[in-house]
Amino acid sequence: MSQFVQKYLEIVEKKDSVLCVGLDPALPSQREKNVMPTDNRIEFMKSIIHDVAPYASAIKMNRQYLIGLSVDELKQLNVLIHQNNMLSIIDHKLGDIGSSNASAIFWFKEEGFDAFTFNPFAGNISEATKLAHNKGLGIIVLTLMSNPEAVFQKQAIINNEPLYLYVAKKSGEAKADGVVIGATGHVTSDDIKDIRIAVGSDCLALVPGVGVQGGNADAILHYFGSRIMINVGRAIIYSDDPIKMARMYKNKFNEQRIRINQRRIRF
Amino acid sequence: MSQFVQKYLEIVEKKDSVLCVGLDPALPSQREKNVMPTDNRIEFMKSIIHDVAPYASAIKMNRQYLIGLSVDELKQLNVLIHQNNMLSIIDHKLGDIGSSNASAIFWFKEEGFDAFTFNPFAGNISEATKLAHNKGLGIIVLTLMSNPEAVFQKQAIINNEPLYLYVAKKSGEAKADGVVIGATGHVTSDDIKDIRIAVGSDCLALVPGVGVQGGNADAILHYFGSRIMINVGRAIIYSDDPIKMARMYKNKFNEQRIRINQRRIRF
Repeated sequence: MSQFVQKYLEIVEKKDSVLCVGLDPALPSQREKNVMPTDNRIEFMKSIIHDVAPYASAIKMNRQYLIGLSVDELKQLNVLIHQNNMLSIIDHKLGDIGSSNASAIFWFKEEGFDAFTFNPFAGNISEATKLAHNKGLGIIVLTLMSNPEAVFQKQAIINNEPLYLYVAKKSGEAKADGVVIGATGHVTSDDIKDIRIAVGSDCLALVPGVGVQGGNADAILHYFGSRIMINVGRAIIYSDDPIKMARMYKNKFNEQRIRINQRRIRF
Repeated sequence: MSQFVQKYLEIVEKKDSVLCVGLDPALPSQREKNVMPTDNRIEFMKSIIHDVAPYASAIKMNRQYLIGLSVDELKQLNVLIHQNNMLSIIDHKLGDIGSSNASAIFWFKEEGFDAFTFNPFAGNISEATKLAHNKGLGIIVLTLMSNPEAVFQKQAIINNEPLYLYVAKKSGEAKADGVVIGATGHVTSDDIKDIRIAVGSDCLALVPGVGVQGGNADAILHYFGSRIMINVGRAIIYSDDPIKMARMYKNKFNEQRIRINQRRIRF
């Protein structure tokens, strides 16, 4: 099993949580709702990290909200995350090839992250996984997303299979650490089962779309067991009470896990 | 025609060049070859911008090499680029959806870029194009890449067509400003023709792979005419004489344009 997945499973057991908190810090000037009460992204993220630390096993930061922050600023955050016994994922959706991917991975390491998300449109999943593992980082590959237009990932056929299964197989062969699977919309229980078979038993699932978007992680919990990171962003970080909301989601996912484990044939 | 394409064509005419210089500033500690002679990415990029300004119509910066730089630092660079009558593209390969894309686009604007590259794996090309145009930015969509593994963009079939044509049609419908087309390997003249028909006559082609990688832009020049940005990175910025190399590529592409225009039936 990969170093990253092993570390994650130890934290899940210790903290009894599969909650990953997504940090999307938006400036008040940036949009109308879901914005920080301050202009200071680092202070806001620090405060959320403190709030959710007892309830979360991982933090995911979306790069599209971190542009302009220094390596040292992010490193500080990642030290804090590690002190609080969580893993830190940069949701970068890296999708270059060769030396450009190597450059990004160099910087992720400098910033102190444990893993990153990868976009497979350019291919080179195996190359990127090697680059990641050489730096001691985990890689989590976008595989089947749940926004309506991503349904083309099911409709496009290659080698007699849908594109998302092609990506899942490549990810499994490369020994990538995880796959991103959406939890709403067109993603069915059978899709998730097929992905789980394709990636093998060591790979984890990162699951967005459960908080505000209203998705349900039941099927992913069924097929991936504890090897799941359920991400909740806005519903926690922009709520009036992030502590309460983080605790609520942690408990909710644990009740789901217990319910599903009871009827689950070990997969 | 889009504001971005119109501006670009004016510069191409004025400067008599379709050269775009790619900035991939790597620290000496980052890898073995193709590194800067300094640790200061901003100073290095400034010096290259000065060197290539007489010969280039655009600068493309790859985000994977810019991580950790501040908004103000990049803004300074972009002011310099504009003072030298070039356009500036952030090669970000943005591939999120909804508010995350909006956040990235907010920051691209703050940084002073004119356009960005977009990765269509999550779909939402039309949504992203609207967000870009609302901010006065151009969007250039990855469509058919030339690295060997990207051949799946031709092999995956959707609506009885290869995936890259599906992307090209969506980009054309969305009125995206440009498409990225690789110039080597499996990309054929017929592929380029099909993309050109799908995206329409206002869309430009951004073409990587021509310098060190040894690709040939003949077919893209044939079908896209002056609506082409031919990117050269390493072969200029890490050469002993960036001025000489930029001039050489400018002239080389112009000779190609003249040769191809002579035998070209207006498309």
